[in-house]
Amino acid sequence: MQDVIDHLEQNQEAALEQLKELLRIPTVSADSAFADDMRKGAEFVHNALQEAGLSVKTIETPGHPIIYAEWLKAEGAPTVLIYGHYDVQPPDPLDLWTTPAFEPDVRDGCIWARGATDDKGQCWTHVLSVGAWLKVHGSLPVNIKFVIEGEEEVGSENLDVFLEQHKEKLACDVAVVSDSSQYAPGIPAITYGLRGILACEVTLTGPNRDLHSGSFGGAVINPVNALCRLMGMLHDDQGRIQIPGFYDSVIALTAEERAQFASLPFDESEWLADLGTDAPAGEVGFSSNERRWARPTCDINGISGGYSGEGPKTIVPSKATAKITCRLVPDQNPEQLTAALKNFLADNLQPGLKFEFTSQHGAPASVADLNSPYMAAAKSAIEKSFDSVPVMVREGGSIPVVGSFKEILGIDTLLLGWGQNSDNLHSPDEHFSIEDFHRGTAASAYLWQELANG
Amino acid sequence: MQDVIDHLEQNQEAALEQLKELLRIPTVSADSAFADDMRKGAEFVHNALQEAGLSVKTIETPGHPIIYAEWLKAEGAPTVLIYGHYDVQPPDPLDLWTTPAFEPDVRDGCIWARGATDDKGQCWTHVLSVGAWLKVHGSLPVNIKFVIEGEEEVGSENLDVFLEQHKEKLACDVAVVSDSSQYAPGIPAITYGLRGILACEVTLTGPNRDLHSGSFGGAVINPVNALCRLMGMLHDDQGRIQIPGFYDSVIALTAEERAQFASLPFDESEWLADLGTDAPAGEVGFSSNERRWARPTCDINGISGGYSGEGPKTIVPSKATAKITCRLVPDQNPEQLTAALKNFLADNLQPGLKFEFTSQHGAPASVADLNSPYMAAAKSAIEKSFDSVPVMVREGGSIPVVGSFKEILGIDTLLLGWGQNSDNLHSPDEHFSIEDFHRGTAASAYLWQELANG
Repeated sequence: MQDVIDHLEQNQEAALEQLKELLRIPTVSADSAFADDMRKGAEFVHNALQEAGLSVKTIETPGHPIIYAEWLKAEGAPTVLIYGHYDVQPPDPLDLWTTPAFEPDVRDGCIWARGATDDKGQCWTHVLSVGAWLKVHGSLPVNIKFVIEGEEEVGSENLDVFLEQHKEKLACDVAVVSDSSQYAPGIPAITYGLRGILACEVTLTGPNRDLHSGSFGGAVINPVNALCRLMGMLHDDQGRIQIPGFYDSVIALTAEERAQFASLPFDESEWLADLGTDAPAGEVGFSSNERRWARPTCDINGISGGYSGEGPKTIVPSKATAKITCRLVPDQNPEQLTAALKNFLADNLQPGLKFEFTSQHGAPASVADLNSPYMAAAKSAIEKSFDSVPVMVREGGSIPVVGSFKEILGIDTLLLGWGQNSDNLHSPDEHFSIEDFHRGTAASAYLWQELANG
Repeated sequence: MQDVIDHLEQNQEAALEQLKELLRIPTVSADSAFADDMRKGAEFVHNALQEAGLSVKTIETPGHPIIYAEWLKAEGAPTVLIYGHYDVQPPDPLDLWTTPAFEPDVRDGCIWARGATDDKGQCWTHVLSVGAWLKVHGSLPVNIKFVIEGEEEVGSENLDVFLEQHKEKLACDVAVVSDSSQYAPGIPAITYGLRGILACEVTLTGPNRDLHSGSFGGAVINPVNALCRLMGMLHDDQGRIQIPGFYDSVIALTAEERAQFASLPFDESEWLADLGTDAPAGEVGFSSNERRWARPTCDINGISGGYSGEGPKTIVPSKATAKITCRLVPDQNPEQLTAALKNFLADNLQPGLKFEFTSQHGAPASVADLNSPYMAAAKSAIEKSFDSVPVMVREGGSIPVVGSFKEILGIDTLLLGWGQNSDNLHSPDEHFSIEDFHRGTAASAYLWQELANG
């Protein structure tokens, strides 16, 4: 093992140069003007994995290609699927970058470029660690499969089809994804839980046209008033969601989880000040981290109805629409709760309204087993490289690929983030700590050994 | 009196021809392309009033001119101010007119043209009746002042300034306005009450930017949820407005008024079907006509916040805005209730929000004295001409000029509508019953006598 770590240390400069080379390719998946660069990026990844000693295949899709690579000679050892993406967010607005987005610059201990942390830099730690094992020992302690796609920033439209089509080829024991963050500088983290989601839209129609609020107001149902009334019924004054059965399947946080969250450094007033609000909000009886990571929500993401131009307009509007998403936690079922939400709204509807409800999408929450040998291996590997026991956190959002791996391949995912929340993902001046890049690479190298030992 | 009526009957054809001539002038006040026509329209009115025997003045304003005319030789008799407007709504969409908007056509007992009812045709009844009196008798039983403006369809911006500046010149006992409708064909009406209004806008700001609803949702105040909650508190389940003190100054309808409203033919299901809704709505314990004419309201005219494009967007929005108008009834005070509404919202605000409240405008309701001699005169005049006792109705909207007359000149207004609700005011194929045109003219001629007798 130490030989691999030594090799990585001795080759840190070359590793950074290789990453820079990749960062110079503007792999903007959203913009067809970058189609040639997407192809170049895919080739770069293909060649690098080949050089690292894996057998590689570029798989065409209706969109951008997926690079698949494997090394499967560790008979009897676990098989690990490593996922990453070589595409990046558009670099706009360009004038807010200190140095150009696709001319990687090293300063203040970081590498600055679009994709530095999301996800080229983080993904590359695994490419490097696997390469080091194969270079030093000619073998790996586990079987490795890489899936590096080029459409993560545009919705991974073709990934699930690929996973379905190659289900057997992709069979594995656990997935590893480094596309998230540490909890804070010096506090590495494993994200073991993600919230699920349900999204829907509700439209109420009252009169068939906007009416004069003088001639008709008071005698005709106003769909904006009615929608507000319904939306106002979603929560009680304790911030608890009022949809019948909403909490029935919620698995409560354990005392250990709550203690772990509570032990994390978290300056709530600073956090709120950054968001521009002066008071915490949400469900009574839970901390902010519990609320955003591990409690379900019901947020109106947008509302519209009637006149929204300047000044007043004296109408009883014809229609009003609200877009709603609920973030879900284990074991809430998105389909069941979509139906429960729809029924709740329909049951409380005032007379005289037309009710339209569209379910948009749903995905269940996921929580990885905190006591699995994979989790223990990841903890140990991170501790060895970062000299710090990783904290166990959850994330309030969804990472669709984690759901797909669970659903299609039946496996848990280890979310091992090497970046920081402050790395400006999706913003100008994206960057990645060079120290964390190297530490992440070493942690990855340790991980293969730990997984084999587990 | 009969001489005047006979004269009017003998000259009906000429009267209609004169109206047609006025209708041919496209006096669209909203569109500067018609500026020359507005001038022509003003001149036409000026000359017609002069020919009728009044002393006339065209008063320039920063917008379109106001025609003022007077005949003040009925010493000791009441002075009546007649208000009308010579400007019209734009005729668009042109292709929906059966015959061109500015080529008046006579068919089905009506005259069809933009302005036929609103307000050239209705206004002209008074010009004709005054002219007939002066022609037949060389005098009128009352003193008459005409104010015919050219900016009613664009907000009468310069009228109040004119009223203020000529307050003494305009001194009078009562105003007469024919710019409304009968209750239904064969059911002439006097509109004796109008609702007032208060208009405001409320904006709630939560976080200083739209936030990812996964990473933040549940732990940060959502201003759209919060605004809906507040708006949902405006009414109870009986449709009663919950702003403290809101009903304190409301003068209840008398038993006579309720009986009068209840006696009017009103097919509620047909009315609702036309509006495209299948159930009446509003304050429990009142009929639809009571609700729209004589009960206060609190309608959200528009709401916006967060994402309103296609599909879902998983954000906690930063802001949400609602535009609210309350229709007011006597003796509610718009300033006091604006403050009460603001306090109600502020008092019920959840923590973590920034609250902005803008008061936009306010006007009190008005009810004319049902027992005044003017009202008796109007009833009697209408009964004589229409062979039917007029019903006493209210209107749920505001007619700003009525408020201005009350506020600046201190007088009540008799709202004597000769048109029908179905005359397509502001729509293609505007028209006016020729029979009602002549009946209205006769009623107007009777009115001067009745007012003198009163």
